[in-house]
Amino acid sequence: MINVSARLNYEVTATTSFVFSLEAGVSEHQRILRERLRCDPDVEVRHLEDSTGNRLIVLTHDVGALEISYDAVVELSPFVPRVEPDHETAFAELPADAYPYLHPSRYCESDLLARFAWRTFGAGPAGVERVHEICEWVYGHLDYVAGSTDASTTAVDVFHTAAGVCRDFAHLAIALCRALGVPARYVSGYAVELDPPDFHGFMEAYIDGRWYLFDATRMSIIDQLVRIATGRDAADVAFATFTGQATLTYLEVAATATDETPDPDTSTVSTA
Amino acid sequence: MINVSARLNYEVTATTSFVFSLEAGVSEHQRILRERLRCDPDVEVRHLEDSTGNRLIVLTHDVGALEISYDAVVELSPFVPRVEPDHETAFAELPADAYPYLHPSRYCESDLLARFAWRTFGAGPAGVERVHEICEWVYGHLDYVAGSTDASTTAVDVFHTAAGVCRDFAHLAIALCRALGVPARYVSGYAVELDPPDFHGFMEAYIDGRWYLFDATRMSIIDQLVRIATGRDAADVAFATFTGQATLTYLEVAATATDETPDPDTSTVSTA
Amino acid sequence: MINVSARLNYEVTATTSFVFSLEAGVSEHQRILRERLRCDPDVEVRHLEDSTGNRLIVLTHDVGALEISYDAVVELSPFVPRVEPDHETAFAELPADAYPYLHPSRYCESDLLARFAWRTFGAGPAGVERVHEICEWVYGHLDYVAGSTDASTTAVDVFHTAAGVCRDFAHLAIALCRALGVPARYVSGYAVELDPPDFHGFMEAYIDGRWYLFDATRMSIIDQLVRIATGRDAADVAFATFTGQATLTYLEVAATATDETPDPDTSTVSTA
Amino acid sequence: MINVSARLNYEVTATTSFVFSLEAGVSEHQRILRERLRCDPDVEVRHLEDSTGNRLIVLTHDVGALEISYDAVVELSPFVPRVEPDHETAFAELPADAYPYLHPSRYCESDLLARFAWRTFGAGPAGVERVHEICEWVYGHLDYVAGSTDASTTAVDVFHTAAGVCRDFAHLAIALCRALGVPARYVSGYAVELDPPDFHGFMEAYIDGRWYLFDATRMSIIDQLVRIATGRDAADVAFATFTGQATLTYLEVAATATDETPDPDTSTVSTA
Repeated sequence: MINVSARLNYEVTATTSFVFSLEAGVSEHQRILRERLRCDPDVEVRHLEDSTGNRLIVLTHDVGALEISYDAVVELSPFVPRVEPDHETAFAELPADAYPYLHPSRYCESDLLARFAWRTFGAGPAGVERVHEICEWVYGHLDYVAGSTDASTTAVDVFHTAAGVCRDFAHLAIALCRALGVPARYVSGYAVELDPPDFHGFMEAYIDGRWYLFDATRMSIIDQLVRIATGRDAADVAFATFTGQATLTYLEVAATATDETPDPDTSTVSTA
Repeated sequence: MINVSARLNYEVTATTSFVFSLEAGVSEHQRILRERLRCDPDVEVRHLEDSTGNRLIVLTHDVGALEISYDAVVELSPFVPRVEPDHETAFAELPADAYPYLHPSRYCESDLLARFAWRTFGAGPAGVERVHEICEWVYGHLDYVAGSTDASTTAVDVFHTAAGVCRDFAHLAIALCRALGVPARYVSGYAVELDPPDFHGFMEAYIDGRWYLFDATRMSIIDQLVRIATGRDAADVAFATFTGQATLTYLEVAATATDETPDPDTSTVSTA
Repeated sequence: MINVSARLNYEVTATTSFVFSLEAGVSEHQRILRERLRCDPDVEVRHLEDSTGNRLIVLTHDVGALEISYDAVVELSPFVPRVEPDHETAFAELPADAYPYLHPSRYCESDLLARFAWRTFGAGPAGVERVHEICEWVYGHLDYVAGSTDASTTAVDVFHTAAGVCRDFAHLAIALCRALGVPARYVSGYAVELDPPDFHGFMEAYIDGRWYLFDATRMSIIDQLVRIATGRDAADVAFATFTGQATLTYLEVAATATDETPDPDTSTVSTA
Repeated sequence: MINVSARLNYEVTATTSFVFSLEAGVSEHQRILRERLRCDPDVEVRHLEDSTGNRLIVLTHDVGALEISYDAVVELSPFVPRVEPDHETAFAELPADAYPYLHPSRYCESDLLARFAWRTFGAGPAGVERVHEICEWVYGHLDYVAGSTDASTTAVDVFHTAAGVCRDFAHLAIALCRALGVPARYVSGYAVELDPPDFHGFMEAYIDGRWYLFDATRMSIIDQLVRIATGRDAADVAFATFTGQATLTYLEVAATATDETPDPDTSTVSTA
């Protein structure tokens, strides 16, 4: 079981509407045993779920301090393949909703990286191994440098600047997968023992009928990741979006495994 | 009623899998009276529908000539508002599946245009009128120049190069809408009397509870547009995507209104 | 007469070589009555002048604090045209060294703005008036927002983000001039009563046989600008460049007019 | 001796002024034994030389066909180092006019490639060998694909698209050199036995007091390159620039060695 929590404080200076994406997702692989969302002051909250299954919290606050806190106990039961699949689902056999994850998106310009991707990864092994190779390459190519990128930084940007943070590692790996015909998408979540603690961004790729998780930063324990939301790229899963006037004054995120030790041999899991 | 048709010829030089998006969509506003899809040679076709309602045709062909032809008779019953809504749905009251259409996408970098959008359109009228103003501005800012852009051209690119084709007009209008907090998305379709005839790209914006159609190119009759597919931007609705080796050798698209004259006063319709 | 001064403090943590560009330039329009450059500690200084006439100070410092201070008394005698030239030098009659200032440069992608420039300014008046119109347009299009841009921001970037600082205003005006066939270049200098005080960046355009100064920010008094250096864009005239490890810990820049009041009617001067 | 020639035909549809850069340059390493420039019709030609030593031909033609032809016999006496210098000129000891060739330029965004350059080439050998390594890397990273890039393509663009033509190879090598503190610049010229024949673009780097030539495409014989012009990047040395209305209808370029066989062991020469 994983205990996750997040606390966000805002100073709101004009009526502001927020959409938060910070609740743990629900699936056959991720069961929520307990969860609690609190707003202070106690404004009315609208709970939504979009067609991807992402849970959204929508609220409006007038003026003054706003605190949102969330904590949950989550039970994970990831699918661990006995043998890692060594081939990808053929293009013509993908499910309808996988095709959009082959398209380039705001932060993952897979169209621009096609030649590089094929030259570098085209002749190698297919399936899970290919995506591992992509993630290794991203890990070697990028320095992890806090503050080196901002909200407009894309996969192609970090391809040449050679530095980024977790979202950039994920974007570049996603872009390379898509360029190779492997559907890939962005996942936001809680990562156990992340240092420094924060929301985490990683990715999953569609291989032989399932979505498998990968984290090119090597900062997380892959079978202890708690998914919050899934999207084309970071644009889809921001932990908070708002219209109005508000400043984030405090952010605290935590995730701890309570009673289990991760299996050190587990490097490939599917939770979607 | 609108008769639409498309014929595509490919020369396939190695086994190639295709996804086509060229069938007319189905909704309460768009009824298909007759339709016919033919492949020559008569390869097996997989019919899919994604969660947005887009219809996909998937097929694989070995080597040699391939012809896909589609024709349909479509009955449109667009919603025409008695009075054009003069306000937008509040951010906090959008349906869950509208939020992604506020996010920047591959070809619509709304994040980079926020200041310009607010300075230029922020003080003006809201609702349908605001999007009309955006489309007018796009129409005035861009020259329509066939061949001036390519598959990697974005809204921000044409913002400074000042030229583009229908997809670029749509992308820039979409980006400006999103920058202003108005959900906006890309629509591919058949446009009656389009000159020169081709697939058309336009956009729709979510206003006061409905998606309204707009065409910043002024090349189409808005209540005679036959929707094919809907997406974040052109990346989602390409008429053909394939993996393998194939060359498009011929493309013919047609759309004609059979028995109706368009209402010249209809400038605002919703068909979604 | 204008008194100018600059003081820069660095903390040097490994042997570092610096090139400084902060001395007032020398020309028939700008005479240096007195000047003094001091380094503390008193390292050896190499004085260079490049083929554009820019003065460079080159020095190497090992480790520890470094202070560079410069002050000068400068006499300006700008050329003020009796009548502002209303036509530009024909392309075929430019001096050889003006052609490079028609080429796009790192921060001034004039090639990408050609269509916009011609549509917007092509039909208007020529000569000084045309460049005034360009500067007015830049002033209206951009918000002056400290910190909104960084060392990689270009004219095209601020064209869509609509915000920048003095160097961005200059870059955009330069790019538009070049796009219209008017040679234009970047000037760094000291501006009297600049608020907040800092090095300033502005531009000059080649019109009817002379280089005329313009400042699209409207922050300076045009006939009291003290030129430091001239270049293609800000890349050529950085006040300091270095290799090694050093941090700028303090920067103070000042410029004051001593005994003259500027002529309020002087809006067009040439000092090159 | 090298025979070089170029013939350009234009169809001029409105009065057009041209600047041509196609004459062989003159230096102690490149002597012109004979040369002839012809214009048909015989319009007046202005001959210029800019401060870099580049020769320009300026002319204006009204309407109709225009043919420019140039041929020359050039004697080269490149400097061949007995031992390739294994260190670079220190930053603080560069000549004043070398500093601008450290600055980023329109097509060589060295600022954006600094981290990659240092990580990849920072620990290797210095001097000529380092630039050879850069050129080898560029040769391996880019596919030579005619038509894959256009006039707006930059070093960073091909860094991720992984394809380009000679100017792109040169731009990327220049950008990497500058990022490492090695002054580097673009050279246009005639290359013997270039296949297909065309104007060629390559680069030179400033090492231990001299400019050495490099060609990352491996398409030319380095000690038989005839220099036309030198610049920051391709923006400075276009073979033709014009204002007006003209279409290039024919271009023929040739270069042949007359009486010498190149020394197969010569891989490093300086001609500037």
